Amino acid sequence: MALAYDPHFIGTGNVDTAAGALMTSPSPSPVSLSQDELKKIAGFKAVEFVESGMVVGLGTGSTAKHAVDRIGELLRQGILTDIVGIPTSKKTHEQALSLNIPLSDLETHPVIDLAIDGADEVDPDMNLVKGRGGSLLREKMIECVSKKFVVIVDESKLVDYIGGSGLAMPVEIVPFCWKFTAQMLQSLFKDADCVAKLRTLPESEDPYVTDNSNYIIDLYFKKNIGDLKAAGDAILRIPGVVEHGMFLDMATTLIVAGEHGVTVKNKA
Amino acid sequence: MALAYDPHFIGTGNVDTAAGALMTSPSPSPVSLSQDELKKIAGFKAVEFVESGMVVGLGTGSTAKHAVDRIGELLRQGILTDIVGIPTSKKTHEQALSLNIPLSDLETHPVIDLAIDGADEVDPDMNLVKGRGGSLLREKMIECVSKKFVVIVDESKLVDYIGGSGLAMPVEIVPFCWKFTAQMLQSLFKDADCVAKLRTLPESEDPYVTDNSNYIIDLYFKKNIGDLKAAGDAILRIPGVVEHGMFLDMATTLIVAGEHGVTVKNKA
Repeated sequence: MALAYDPHFIGTGNVDTAAGALMTSPSPSPVSLSQDELKKIAGFKAVEFVESGMVVGLGTGSTAKHAVDRIGELLRQGILTDIVGIPTSKKTHEQALSLNIPLSDLETHPVIDLAIDGADEVDPDMNLVKGRGGSLLREKMIECVSKKFVVIVDESKLVDYIGGSGLAMPVEIVPFCWKFTAQMLQSLFKDADCVAKLRTLPESEDPYVTDNSNYIIDLYFKKNIGDLKAAGDAILRIPGVVEHGMFLDMATTLIVAGEHGVTVKNKA
Repeated sequence: MALAYDPHFIGTGNVDTAAGALMTSPSPSPVSLSQDELKKIAGFKAVEFVESGMVVGLGTGSTAKHAVDRIGELLRQGILTDIVGIPTSKKTHEQALSLNIPLSDLETHPVIDLAIDGADEVDPDMNLVKGRGGSLLREKMIECVSKKFVVIVDESKLVDYIGGSGLAMPVEIVPFCWKFTAQMLQSLFKDADCVAKLRTLPESEDPYVTDNSNYIIDLYFKKNIGDLKAAGDAILRIPGVVEHGMFLDMATTLIVAGEHGVTVKNKA
């Protein structure tokens, strides 16, 4: 659909609705693409799933930003109409406002037709790590009530197992006694040689503060943590924990942009 | 021990360390006691478990207040020495300061020898509802790392099942989209004819705000909610929920003050 009109778009995969199918189409261009170009390709591809009249969850982060831009563009062109956006962060709220995307909230629209968002890690079962951008709680509130959840990543985000990138799995916690909560989290995953670190502002010792006035503890795992649902429940049972960055069994479609094209995978 | 010196103390039960045993001793006095007098009896009895040198979690509420007063009194008299108190709320912090109880926090003392606190409901398995006073999160953080947790109630708090009093089971949530989170909670327990209500300030529509700047949703159940652990995990999985007021498998000793004396029950 609309993407055909975009001269910047390179390499679209066919959307396969068969359960679990993974399809790749070769890129028509041999040029080397930057990571941001790949993110843009994935973001634009996701917007093909948006139909006029939908309530759409608008993700946060460098990949989702491209999808939100694209929705704004298609609204402006009249190709999409009657869209209601539900932003997942204050930042996305501002971006969508600047694009004149009509906005609402979860309380007015408790059922969302489709959400589009990036992810920091995606495992082979389409479980995600999110929240390195800091807005995991609002994202999870919105995406857990979305009928469809389209996840868009460049291929660097694919991992064999959650934690496998060696980068952070974030946990949002209340500020009260945060060192204690961090220690409880680290102890919970001692078998995975976990290290728990308070997220701080760049070049500062001051804590990063979320949209909900909480802190983020970043967990780094050296080994596979095993059963993700059990791990998630165990994290949530620690008093002081508000939410964790594992999005389990939530994604319904995964769009991956890579050097060799775009792949679209639907949840089995 | 120390309680023998207190002329206000009426009716002590024997502390039975046998698993699950429940012992009652008749009150030596036929006078009718007020609910506050019963709370005081339970609070004072609990302090018999405190030994010099202990790190003690100090509870919050009208019953725990008596225990904290008693600890202050025994410190002043030199009967207890070398106590470190960990208060479970700003209010208890102030009370303990006024009594000159040496205070610390979880980060300095991550292992607590004994905690004493009240409860709003106690079921036959010593599962609790707490938090009608509003400080459930800090209480749970402290009491979940206490080697012993002594719960003190008057007999009006005993219920056949959690929720059985018809009074609230509180859930602490983030303020963002609180109506949505309240609706998710109510839906989760629709089989128990649950009603979810935002806790407000007295004679006001303004939300009650916790020590952690969150809101409280009070859940009222008309029927038994069944498996409490499963219910607790399901509540915590709702994004936006910070903590719930069920304290499951945490109490090690229950002290109940009633018209006919004090009973002490130890966890099987």
